[in-house]
Amino acid sequence: MVKLTQTVKKGGCAAKVAAYELRDILGRVRFPKPQENLLINGAHFDDAAVYRLSDDLCLVETLDFFTPIVDDPYLFGQIASTNALSDVYAMGASPKTALAILAFPLATLDNAVAAQILQGAVDTLSKAGADLAGGHSIDDDTLKFGLSVTGFVHPKEIWANRGAKPGDHLILTKGLGTGTLMAALKNGRLSEVELSSAFHSMTMLNDIRSHLTSKDLAAIHAATDVTGFGIAGHSYQMAKASGVSLAISASTLPRLAHAETALAEGLLTKAHRTNREYVETHLHVMNVVGDLERLLFFDPQTSGGLLLAVDPQFSADFATKLKGAFPDAVVVGEVLPRGEKSLYYDG
Amino acid sequence: MVKLTQTVKKGGCAAKVAAYELRDILGRVRFPKPQENLLINGAHFDDAAVYRLSDDLCLVETLDFFTPIVDDPYLFGQIASTNALSDVYAMGASPKTALAILAFPLATLDNAVAAQILQGAVDTLSKAGADLAGGHSIDDDTLKFGLSVTGFVHPKEIWANRGAKPGDHLILTKGLGTGTLMAALKNGRLSEVELSSAFHSMTMLNDIRSHLTSKDLAAIHAATDVTGFGIAGHSYQMAKASGVSLAISASTLPRLAHAETALAEGLLTKAHRTNREYVETHLHVMNVVGDLERLLFFDPQTSGGLLLAVDPQFSADFATKLKGAFPDAVVVGEVLPRGEKSLYYDG
Repeated sequence: MVKLTQTVKKGGCAAKVAAYELRDILGRVRFPKPQENLLINGAHFDDAAVYRLSDDLCLVETLDFFTPIVDDPYLFGQIASTNALSDVYAMGASPKTALAILAFPLATLDNAVAAQILQGAVDTLSKAGADLAGGHSIDDDTLKFGLSVTGFVHPKEIWANRGAKPGDHLILTKGLGTGTLMAALKNGRLSEVELSSAFHSMTMLNDIRSHLTSKDLAAIHAATDVTGFGIAGHSYQMAKASGVSLAISASTLPRLAHAETALAEGLLTKAHRTNREYVETHLHVMNVVGDLERLLFFDPQTSGGLLLAVDPQFSADFATKLKGAFPDAVVVGEVLPRGEKSLYYDG
Repeated sequence: MVKLTQTVKKGGCAAKVAAYELRDILGRVRFPKPQENLLINGAHFDDAAVYRLSDDLCLVETLDFFTPIVDDPYLFGQIASTNALSDVYAMGASPKTALAILAFPLATLDNAVAAQILQGAVDTLSKAGADLAGGHSIDDDTLKFGLSVTGFVHPKEIWANRGAKPGDHLILTKGLGTGTLMAALKNGRLSEVELSSAFHSMTMLNDIRSHLTSKDLAAIHAATDVTGFGIAGHSYQMAKASGVSLAISASTLPRLAHAETALAEGLLTKAHRTNREYVETHLHVMNVVGDLERLLFFDPQTSGGLLLAVDPQFSADFATKLKGAFPDAVVVGEVLPRGEKSLYYDG
C-alpha cells in the first residue's frame, strides 16, 4: 500500500504559504470597498468570513485543505475535515454544509483511497451535523484534501480575532505539538500507534458551544483556532486585531504525548522557522523560557485547539466545563493593554 | 518571466478528475440522509449545492480551481474566477462572496504572480457584485487557483440539471473550443494574440439574468454550465437528471476562432478521450457528423457557456436578447422524451 505521507514533501498545515509571504502578496492587491453586509473579511486574518443575511442570521464561510499528514486515508479525511470545521467553530458558528476540495494523483493512487478520504470527511461532517453537498476534484501530482465549510451564527454571537480585552484570560482547548509529531511520523521516528493520542486530538471537533451555557458563551470576547501559524502566529493575529498585547506562559501550554521528545530530537518543519520569522519583531521572549518551549511556540498545528479570550470571572469554571470534552483545555495566559510588543512569552 | 502554462502538464478544466473516475469514487462512499434544507447536493452532478435558508432565500455554493491555461497571471485570475462564478449563474443565482483557493510554488514563482492572479479575481468579482472575503493558500509544486463562491437565489427561481422538458429548446451562450485552443497555446501553435477572442469569451460573466425579463427567466426549465466534461458530458448530466434525452445538432454548435484548425491539427487533451469514454454508451452519433465535430463535442471547456433548456415559445426571442452580451448565443438542439440513448448528436 502506498504510504500517503511519503508522497509529499510536507504535510498538513505546515504546508501553508508562510504568513509573511501571504502578507506580502495581499499587500500588493487593490481591494475595492466591500459590501456593507460583509462583516468580516480577510483584513484581520480571521478564521472565516462573515456575511450578514438578516438581523438575526450571519453566514460564516471558510476553506482549508492540505497534503496528507498520515498514511491512513480515512484518518486523513477525518483530520482534514475536523481542521476545516474548526474555522467555523472558531467564529462561534454551527457548520451546515461543506464542499470537498480534492487534488488526486490518479496515476499513482487507487480510487479507493479517494473514497476512504471522502468517507472520513462525510462521517466527520455527520458528527458535526453538516452535509457534504458537492465539491471539485482535479488530477494532480500530489494528494491534497480539504473542505470549504459554511455555517451560521447570530450576529451578536460572532467571535472574531478582534475583541480581546485587557484582563481577559486565554484558554487553549487542545495540546500543542502536531507539527513536530507529524514530522516524526514522516521520518519513521514515531509510529501511528504511538501517535494515537495526537490523532484523537486532531479528530476532536472544536464544538465548544455544546459544552457551555449561553452565559459562558457571552463571556468569550475573541477566538481563533490554532493551526499552521502556531500558537505564536495566531496569538499575534488576535493581539493585532484587538489592539492589545497577549502574554502566554510557556509552562502552562498543554503538549501532546511525545511532542517534547520529537522537538528535542530536532524533528522540525519549515514552518517552525517561518512562524518565528512572522512574529519575531513583535515578540518578547523572557530569558527563562527554555529551548524546547521556544520551539513549541512556533510549532505549526494541524486541527489544533481554539484559543479563547475569556472574561476572567468565568475562565476557571470555563476550563473545568471544557475538560470533559477537551482534557487538555487550560488557561495559558492573559490579555494585556497594548504594550511595546504584541506578544510576551514567559516561563 | 516564467511562462505559467509551461509549469504544468495540463491546464484548466481539462485537469479535472474524469467524470467516470469521479462516479466510481463517489459510488464507494456511504452518504447519510441529507438535511431537509439541502435542496440540491452532488447527486445529480449539479453545478452547485443549494441550501434553503427561508421560504424566499436559498444559498448557492460552489467551488472550482485549476492549473494555469494562460501565461498572463492577471488573465489567469480573471478566467479562473469567471469560471467559478459561472456555476452560481448556472443555478440562476447572484454571487455575493468568494474565498480564494491558491496552491502556489513559492520556490519558483515571484509573489507578484500570486498578487496579479488575486487582482484578476478581485476585479472579476467586483464586476459580478461580489467580494473576495478570504481564502486558503498552500505552498505546492504546481500553481492552482480558483474560488469557492456563494450566491443567493429565490427558491422558485433555481435552475438545476433536472427540469428539462421534452420540446424545450437548448441554448448555448458561448462558443466551444477552449480545450483544443489552450492545448495549441501550450504547444506554441497559437499565440496569446491569436487567442484574444477565446480569452474574451472565457472572461465574460455568464450573468444572463441581467439581460432577460422575469418572464424570460421563468421560461428556463434547466441549466448547466459547460466546463471540463464538454458539451457532451454536461448535456448527458442534464439528460440523466431530467429523465429525458437531448438532441444536439453539430452544425449549429458555435465555435471559437481557430478551434476547428486546432482540432484538425490534433491538438487534444486527455479529457477529449475521457469525456468520450464518460458518455459513449449513452450516446448515438449520426453518421453524417464529421470527425472535427465529433472532437468538438468532447472538447473540455474552461469558463464555457451556459446550456439552457428553454420553453420553445421563448427560445428565438431569447437567443436574440442574449446576442448583445453573448454574440455566440444560439439554439443548438432540443429536448426529447427519454429514448434509448440519453444523447443524440446529429449533423
